[in-house]
Amino acid sequence: MEHALHKHTVKSYEDELVRLSRTIAEMGGVAESQLEWALRALTTRDLELAKRTVANDARIDAFEESVHDDAVRLLALRQPMGVDLREIVSVFRISSNLERIGDLSKSVARRVEVLNSMPPLPQVHALRRMGKEVIGQLKDVLDAYVDRNSDRAVAVWRKDELVDGMYNSLFRESLTNMMEDARTISACTHLLFVAKHIERIGDHCTNIAETIHYLVRGERIADERPKGDETETMVQ
Amino acid sequence: MEHALHKHTVKSYEDELVRLSRTIAEMGGVAESQLEWALRALTTRDLELAKRTVANDARIDAFEESVHDDAVRLLALRQPMGVDLREIVSVFRISSNLERIGDLSKSVARRVEVLNSMPPLPQVHALRRMGKEVIGQLKDVLDAYVDRNSDRAVAVWRKDELVDGMYNSLFRESLTNMMEDARTISACTHLLFVAKHIERIGDHCTNIAETIHYLVRGERIADERPKGDETETMVQ
Repeated sequence: MEHALHKHTVKSYEDELVRLSRTIAEMGGVAESQLEWALRALTTRDLELAKRTVANDARIDAFEESVHDDAVRLLALRQPMGVDLREIVSVFRISSNLERIGDLSKSVARRVEVLNSMPPLPQVHALRRMGKEVIGQLKDVLDAYVDRNSDRAVAVWRKDELVDGMYNSLFRESLTNMMEDARTISACTHLLFVAKHIERIGDHCTNIAETIHYLVRGERIADERPKGDETETMVQ
Repeated sequence: MEHALHKHTVKSYEDELVRLSRTIAEMGGVAESQLEWALRALTTRDLELAKRTVANDARIDAFEESVHDDAVRLLALRQPMGVDLREIVSVFRISSNLERIGDLSKSVARRVEVLNSMPPLPQVHALRRMGKEVIGQLKDVLDAYVDRNSDRAVAVWRKDELVDGMYNSLFRESLTNMMEDARTISACTHLLFVAKHIERIGDHCTNIAETIHYLVRGERIADERPKGDETETMVQ
């Protein structure tokens, strides 16, 4: 009887862990569609979609709160060790990265109204490509999480340099644009921030990749982190 | 004998918790001086200090790693519940906010070289005031952490609107500046990002304040979070 009870407890604990991890994957799916919506709203100048994206961010915040509470409860009720403990610690980290991805997507969407009030800029195409790349990385890193695949996570981690390169040329292009036509200054500035938000979302994907590596392997990625925003030291 | 051993274990556990919490306070002190240095380097155009600040960021990253490992070890070896568990969960959150504050300070410092290559801008004074305000909030929130004082944490949380207001007027001023004199475009853009970094550091202080409230009271701050960056919807 005692044995059966014990087994039951263990079983339900595993269930809880699986459920927690599924919630993270679900939260990741929402973050992904928020990012997609924000970028589509921006590139198609769709204010209604932008507003829906902004309103929808509350869902991600609610996810984070409930995931946090569940993780704390699991820590208190069970005494996880080893990979189980890393599962829960990773939940804290990944959910906080997803929450930031949601926030940044909201910031992109919030700028649609201002940008719609000004003539469209050519950089919007570069931005779309950059956004597509980051959406791909977010998808990949979420798949890596679901599969507990650290190699796939490391592959995402390495690809962050690509996004940084895209950001760097967008930065340059925008400065040139502003200098050549002062009427574009306001729009270019907002677009630069949008680009920076997307670059940051790429960084969060990198963070999630690091967390997956730690979760699966029990140790940090040994390599140096790829270089980040190089525009910080870019003398124009 | 067993009783004495038990007491010893408990005592050393408390010691470990206290030590972990002291390390967080120490890490906070380093983050604070990094922010101070970055801002001083920027306003006094001191490239040497900027470089030291950039190099010193590795210290904060090392802090985060060691704090993370200690917290995971404490979770695995002890079975903390209630406020002890919240202590450890808070360590994860606060250290990750401090790590970001370090990163953002590094980004500020990294822009000093570019900004030094261009004529100084009048906005630098507004930036200094904004920086001073955020440094004050970081100090306050770290004190609130050391004293486990949730009222003081909530006071910091409420003051974030002040920084956001400063950022908003700096944003406006910079756009005007760029439109009036195209030669300032590059410098203004970098300065705008510096201002955004500082505004983000203010947000991280707000996050830390929320974590302290949760740590001390066991529940979230009930109020709506103060409004953030209003420039996102600001039609110039």
